[in-house]
Amino acid sequence: MIVIKGGVTTPKGFLASGVKAGIKKSGRKDLALLYSEVPAVASGAFTSNRFQASPVKISRNHIANKMHQAIIVNSGNANCGNGRIGDRDAISMAKFIAGAMALGPKEVLVASTGIIGRYMPIGKVQKATPELVNALSAASGSKFAETIMTTDTKKKELAVKVKIGGCVVTIGGACKGVGMIYPEVVTEKHATMLSFITTDAAITKRMLAASLDEAIGDSFNMISVDGDMSTNDSCFIMANGLACNKPIVSRNKDYCVFVEALKYVSMELAKMMVRDGEGATRFVEITVAGAKTVADAKAVARKVSTSNLLKCAIYGRDPNWGRVAAAAGASGVAFDPDKTDIYLGGTKVLANGQSVKSCDLNKVRKAFNRDTVGIRVDLKSGKASAKAWTCDFSHEYVSINSEYST
Amino acid sequence: MIVIKGGVTTPKGFLASGVKAGIKKSGRKDLALLYSEVPAVASGAFTSNRFQASPVKISRNHIANKMHQAIIVNSGNANCGNGRIGDRDAISMAKFIAGAMALGPKEVLVASTGIIGRYMPIGKVQKATPELVNALSAASGSKFAETIMTTDTKKKELAVKVKIGGCVVTIGGACKGVGMIYPEVVTEKHATMLSFITTDAAITKRMLAASLDEAIGDSFNMISVDGDMSTNDSCFIMANGLACNKPIVSRNKDYCVFVEALKYVSMELAKMMVRDGEGATRFVEITVAGAKTVADAKAVARKVSTSNLLKCAIYGRDPNWGRVAAAAGASGVAFDPDKTDIYLGGTKVLANGQSVKSCDLNKVRKAFNRDTVGIRVDLKSGKASAKAWTCDFSHEYVSINSEYST
Repeated sequence: MIVIKGGVTTPKGFLASGVKAGIKKSGRKDLALLYSEVPAVASGAFTSNRFQASPVKISRNHIANKMHQAIIVNSGNANCGNGRIGDRDAISMAKFIAGAMALGPKEVLVASTGIIGRYMPIGKVQKATPELVNALSAASGSKFAETIMTTDTKKKELAVKVKIGGCVVTIGGACKGVGMIYPEVVTEKHATMLSFITTDAAITKRMLAASLDEAIGDSFNMISVDGDMSTNDSCFIMANGLACNKPIVSRNKDYCVFVEALKYVSMELAKMMVRDGEGATRFVEITVAGAKTVADAKAVARKVSTSNLLKCAIYGRDPNWGRVAAAAGASGVAFDPDKTDIYLGGTKVLANGQSVKSCDLNKVRKAFNRDTVGIRVDLKSGKASAKAWTCDFSHEYVSINSEYST
Repeated sequence: MIVIKGGVTTPKGFLASGVKAGIKKSGRKDLALLYSEVPAVASGAFTSNRFQASPVKISRNHIANKMHQAIIVNSGNANCGNGRIGDRDAISMAKFIAGAMALGPKEVLVASTGIIGRYMPIGKVQKATPELVNALSAASGSKFAETIMTTDTKKKELAVKVKIGGCVVTIGGACKGVGMIYPEVVTEKHATMLSFITTDAAITKRMLAASLDEAIGDSFNMISVDGDMSTNDSCFIMANGLACNKPIVSRNKDYCVFVEALKYVSMELAKMMVRDGEGATRFVEITVAGAKTVADAKAVARKVSTSNLLKCAIYGRDPNWGRVAAAAGASGVAFDPDKTDIYLGGTKVLANGQSVKSCDLNKVRKAFNRDTVGIRVDLKSGKASAKAWTCDFSHEYVSINSEYST
């Protein structure tokens, strides 16, 4: 597998565009389109929040369709809490694209991100549709990534190439989301993370869903900025078969190669969101090892990743490992604290549940001054491990989120 | 029931003291003692965190004793993550008091709060013990409340009087804790909330435990400052019988009167902690109504109470109810969003899952400017309700917690 500069239009046959429809007050680009020149199979994972935005409800319904060709995405308005009017507006967005591109409405998926509880300015979306369609280009992958941003400070995209059965298969992706980030997305059921992955692999819809399911568990579902789960989290993948590999129809060797590459893309996209997390000054990787089960390891890692106290300590470069221990212990996972080791930035600070008095806290403080801070919890009770990612908690986070809707 | 000015020494026969032992760097009072002149029955509720501080382990063991007379408490050091040395130090603290007051060591309970992972300066505790014992006085309830403070800015205490079977029974209480506050305390099993309740009621140990169990579920276990559960949370109650009421031995009318008063005291103490929450500028009461079960109502209320985004919005006086909806929906409780109403400061902002466009957001902004902000979520699916309490999330919180251990 090689990692290349690229994004959602790097795989063969994908075009994208991004325009200014006037949804965002700032006047920035806010309406984006992703399009496959040939019919593609698609899969999606959506937020498990009980409150679901209208585009999530509509895309959950549309994803059942056999084939898809387009995803319309707006930023600046979540279209959530708008009742039937919201549902109708989300359907209209799909219909505008279907109409302009001679597709069935169910061949179009919809995603929205922005403020909750304001009606979608659907007239503006309709008015911008011709421009959006006309602007479609293989050169506009980055424009797509830019248009879907809200409080993001950087566009997030990447692409990889892998060989599957002698053919070069490309996977590209773009995502947004740096606040209200604690996804728990569930394939074909219920992720304001928005992730869009494209591939020219030939793969069946069923195997595409299976591969997405494998990829999200170790990537999107292991990141947290603030522990707040969105009503709009959505993750889409489209595969159009233009790489002409022998179609992946079962969990064979080709499937494994594809899943590994998809996992890489998903994990890199997920980490990009955390690195750009609202107000973040540090990227934090939490590794939990020695757990009885992967589920246990994930639960502990995720609980540590949401500790406000730990996140403040990292912001303050304060090697206060007690907050790691307290968070791990609050995970609900049964483990033996008297066997537990904790490492901060590679330095063992807790050994068998007991503070390591001889450890060099100045070394830990130095490690906390690097861009990436590593925290490791070894439960020494089994062989399972997991990683979760978060960022520190800064004054800037509070500023951003105390002034968002006004 | 009447509420009176008072604290842990207001009930008959209780004495308290607080001295400077040199545990806190600041040089403030850090060692406190609570004492009943006659043997009392006691009950305790301790953190359900898997990592338990040494004083929690020791008190869990001592609480099984039939009778108790003293509780020694230090602030400035959590005595957690100190292994066997920590356990031995916690036992020593009980033994120092037992020795000085001719009690059995198991008649003494221990509580600690402060930084995790530093050995208790046990020599300083031993040295301060004679002064601590000599200072015991019925006039020092407030001194006790003051001594147990860490990042608290105010001492927290109150007392109530109720008539039980013609006798006046007094219940007093003191507590500390304004950060690492998300208690889930379990009676006799397993907050850094520390709560101490005293009463001169005559009641059996079994009924005292039952009453504490009833009281904590709607009080301490429904507050959150930062969502971080401590390794040291402890809640103690001692009843010495000096009110000379007919002993409460079953769930009779007297028991009900006692429980109501105890619930009041517990809830007021719990709210005091939130009002003084680290960096708090607003007190937030979340009411969830119309749930199928009380457990559902509590789960939704607690999830809303831990939303960082909502807490930042309240800090910014921003009527962003989407964050309430998103948090409620992330609670894991099954409810129908299309039936759900949300009120901010008495104004209905969401009706049947749909944004109320006609609502006066300026009125909500005004309500957000009051000291207490009320949020109500009505699930309209049942008759159960619950309340949870939290505070807003300010720049000051980040400052306090990025500079704590250094």
